[in-house]
Amino acid sequence: MAKLKGAAVFGQSGGPTSVINSSAAGVFLTALKSGCITKVYGAANGIRGILDGKLYDIGCEDEKELFYLKNTPSSALGSVRYKLADAAEDETDYKRLLEVFKQFNIRYFFYNGGNDSMDTCNKVSKYMQKAGYECRVMGVPKTIDNDLYGTDHCPGFGSAAKYIATSLMEVYQDARVYDKGSIMVVEIMGRNAGWLTGASALAAMKGAGPDLIYLPELPFDREKFLEDAAKIARANNGNCMIAASEGIKYADGRYVADSGKRDKFGHAQLGGVATALGEMLREAIPEYRVRTIELSLLQRCASHCGSKTDVEEAFEAGKTAVEMAVAGKTDFCVGFERTTGKNGEYGCEMKLIPLSEIANTEKKVPREWINEEGNFVNEKFIEYALPLIQGEADYPREDGLPRFARLKKVIAEA
Amino acid sequence: MAKLKGAAVFGQSGGPTSVINSSAAGVFLTALKSGCITKVYGAANGIRGILDGKLYDIGCEDEKELFYLKNTPSSALGSVRYKLADAAEDETDYKRLLEVFKQFNIRYFFYNGGNDSMDTCNKVSKYMQKAGYECRVMGVPKTIDNDLYGTDHCPGFGSAAKYIATSLMEVYQDARVYDKGSIMVVEIMGRNAGWLTGASALAAMKGAGPDLIYLPELPFDREKFLEDAAKIARANNGNCMIAASEGIKYADGRYVADSGKRDKFGHAQLGGVATALGEMLREAIPEYRVRTIELSLLQRCASHCGSKTDVEEAFEAGKTAVEMAVAGKTDFCVGFERTTGKNGEYGCEMKLIPLSEIANTEKKVPREWINEEGNFVNEKFIEYALPLIQGEADYPREDGLPRFARLKKVIAEA
Repeated sequence: MAKLKGAAVFGQSGGPTSVINSSAAGVFLTALKSGCITKVYGAANGIRGILDGKLYDIGCEDEKELFYLKNTPSSALGSVRYKLADAAEDETDYKRLLEVFKQFNIRYFFYNGGNDSMDTCNKVSKYMQKAGYECRVMGVPKTIDNDLYGTDHCPGFGSAAKYIATSLMEVYQDARVYDKGSIMVVEIMGRNAGWLTGASALAAMKGAGPDLIYLPELPFDREKFLEDAAKIARANNGNCMIAASEGIKYADGRYVADSGKRDKFGHAQLGGVATALGEMLREAIPEYRVRTIELSLLQRCASHCGSKTDVEEAFEAGKTAVEMAVAGKTDFCVGFERTTGKNGEYGCEMKLIPLSEIANTEKKVPREWINEEGNFVNEKFIEYALPLIQGEADYPREDGLPRFARLKKVIAEA
Repeated sequence: MAKLKGAAVFGQSGGPTSVINSSAAGVFLTALKSGCITKVYGAANGIRGILDGKLYDIGCEDEKELFYLKNTPSSALGSVRYKLADAAEDETDYKRLLEVFKQFNIRYFFYNGGNDSMDTCNKVSKYMQKAGYECRVMGVPKTIDNDLYGTDHCPGFGSAAKYIATSLMEVYQDARVYDKGSIMVVEIMGRNAGWLTGASALAAMKGAGPDLIYLPELPFDREKFLEDAAKIARANNGNCMIAASEGIKYADGRYVADSGKRDKFGHAQLGGVATALGEMLREAIPEYRVRTIELSLLQRCASHCGSKTDVEEAFEAGKTAVEMAVAGKTDFCVGFERTTGKNGEYGCEMKLIPLSEIANTEKKVPREWINEEGNFVNEKFIEYALPLIQGEADYPREDGLPRFARLKKVIAEA
């Protein structure tokens, strides 16, 4: 394979995670040292920045700051939720992309995101091929939701899982200090896949986590839920902890978080699922005190409680994308293959997944990892998730607070 | 002063903090090694446990586990919110306390809590003196609210402040990733004192915190708030971050969190202050996206993000209480005196505050530490708070998760 000389652009897409910038660091630091990548650009707000010709010249950044990206949460370049039209229907965006690629002599396109972003990668690559423009396209996986197909797990999941398990262990202590107990409902992210909510079982494994766990993979049964919660509270001095995924639905497809309330214009007011479950509990078993907590954005950006395993793997994913592209690969997304050592120790090897396979497919928690009653995950889930939260992200500090990367963001001229 | 031989009891009271157990470790480890304290008891659920004669024999615990208490959040012995009646009006509880003190030969009473708990200490001590029962009584301060009178600061505040500033820095990154900004409202604990909400300014000092800060010390002006938020959002691509104390009130004394909504029985439905401010913003400036976050219980039990300074000072407060009582002092609460070294470095010395002075007095954020407009704190607040969040609580871990103390809680026999 002949060496392809030219510039590289990297973009971040979709919801942030606490390690997405670690992948950025992996891409940038590797690309800057690669012999054949002539310029390294960061796209402002993902594909949007390329369409707008707004690219940052990463060569102008201090190397030290690029290393700081490893522990800087969220998308340092800015993110975007933008779905490219099918090129067969509307070529406008693609023509513009090609124009910018030519303008900056971009021959390497790295895109970091989830399902939708891999679809974007795939479409861009197909178009460039059709247009006869030589360009290597590589996806870098990312999502706290852990729902990407074809990879053992996704960068971002381990750190969010570690934060959730840690925080639940702490809240568990707090919830039980008074002589009269309380029912605690915790809302966790995950619209269609319950990986993050399942991670709350890691706290339970330590004797300080939820009694009941509800994933979006199974229909939510209101009566059974109220029975289970009441039974547990009754047997435990009023105490019961519940972890619920934001996306749980009834068997008829209605979201549990849809409170049924309508505003003055008749629009549905979607409350949180914790609020909805809390109201149900207060009505059905008013003898118990109920508190609700929504982990909200905190869970996806808590780099101060990051998993070292996750941070390192995210970096490695970015690095591998560049190395493989330089070596001639294109149209792949980097993925993780779990390996098991002689003594059962966890290992993780990089692999490549064809973009056409990974795009737009969701990986859910297998039914056999959820208990029969559908209100907890079993030891298979724990075995899967536990290695991913190991090690502490040893983040740099300044004045007792995290020291995030400070990028100059010099706008590149074509 | 003659040595007083006898047992010691320690109780925890009021809302938990992430370092209240560090004070417990200080009390226990010091008392167990004191020559004249014959037995060390932990009261189950504070004063409630003493009234019920439910005491744990701390001598039965592994010393290693007592050290683990330093980084175990919340009240390991259980807490209570129980206000003793005036002895002049109703002696029932006091008689019972005296009975239990005699039964267990308790000659040292250590009580860990905030304003109310110091009031309890004071009342118990007065009664024992009147009854001619020799007993030394010492308060150990505790409250994330930092509102205790007579001490530079309170154990628990530094760690909560560090967690709040860290989390806000992270959320700030997350809130600004899209090309269209958002207004973010964060609700922080503090019913009457704004110390914790003020701590969000530490994140702002790092360029990644709130633009507006509202403390309960000043009346909340709805019109000015909406104007300020709109102005900032307009100037910053729709971005504005707001930190508000749960206890902010209008000039007429109404809580901002009182949404005015009534349930079917006509009871006021108190929502969170973030929800209330969020609704105001959505109505007044609907062109901006608004998100709300309630830091909830997370902020008071996040020992994984504890301040080393705070953890050590909390331990020292417990240790000092025991040492001073053994040396003959009684009717004091341990307090902190801030010292400044030759090069301006922060120091903290233990001091004793008469219980009668500390009980039931609240310390608020001084007006001159808040800016003139009443929507931010100034550099005096930063100078005060910054030293308190220094150092990382290096907590023990197991399986990538915190390793909390595991107490046997052996019930003591009189």
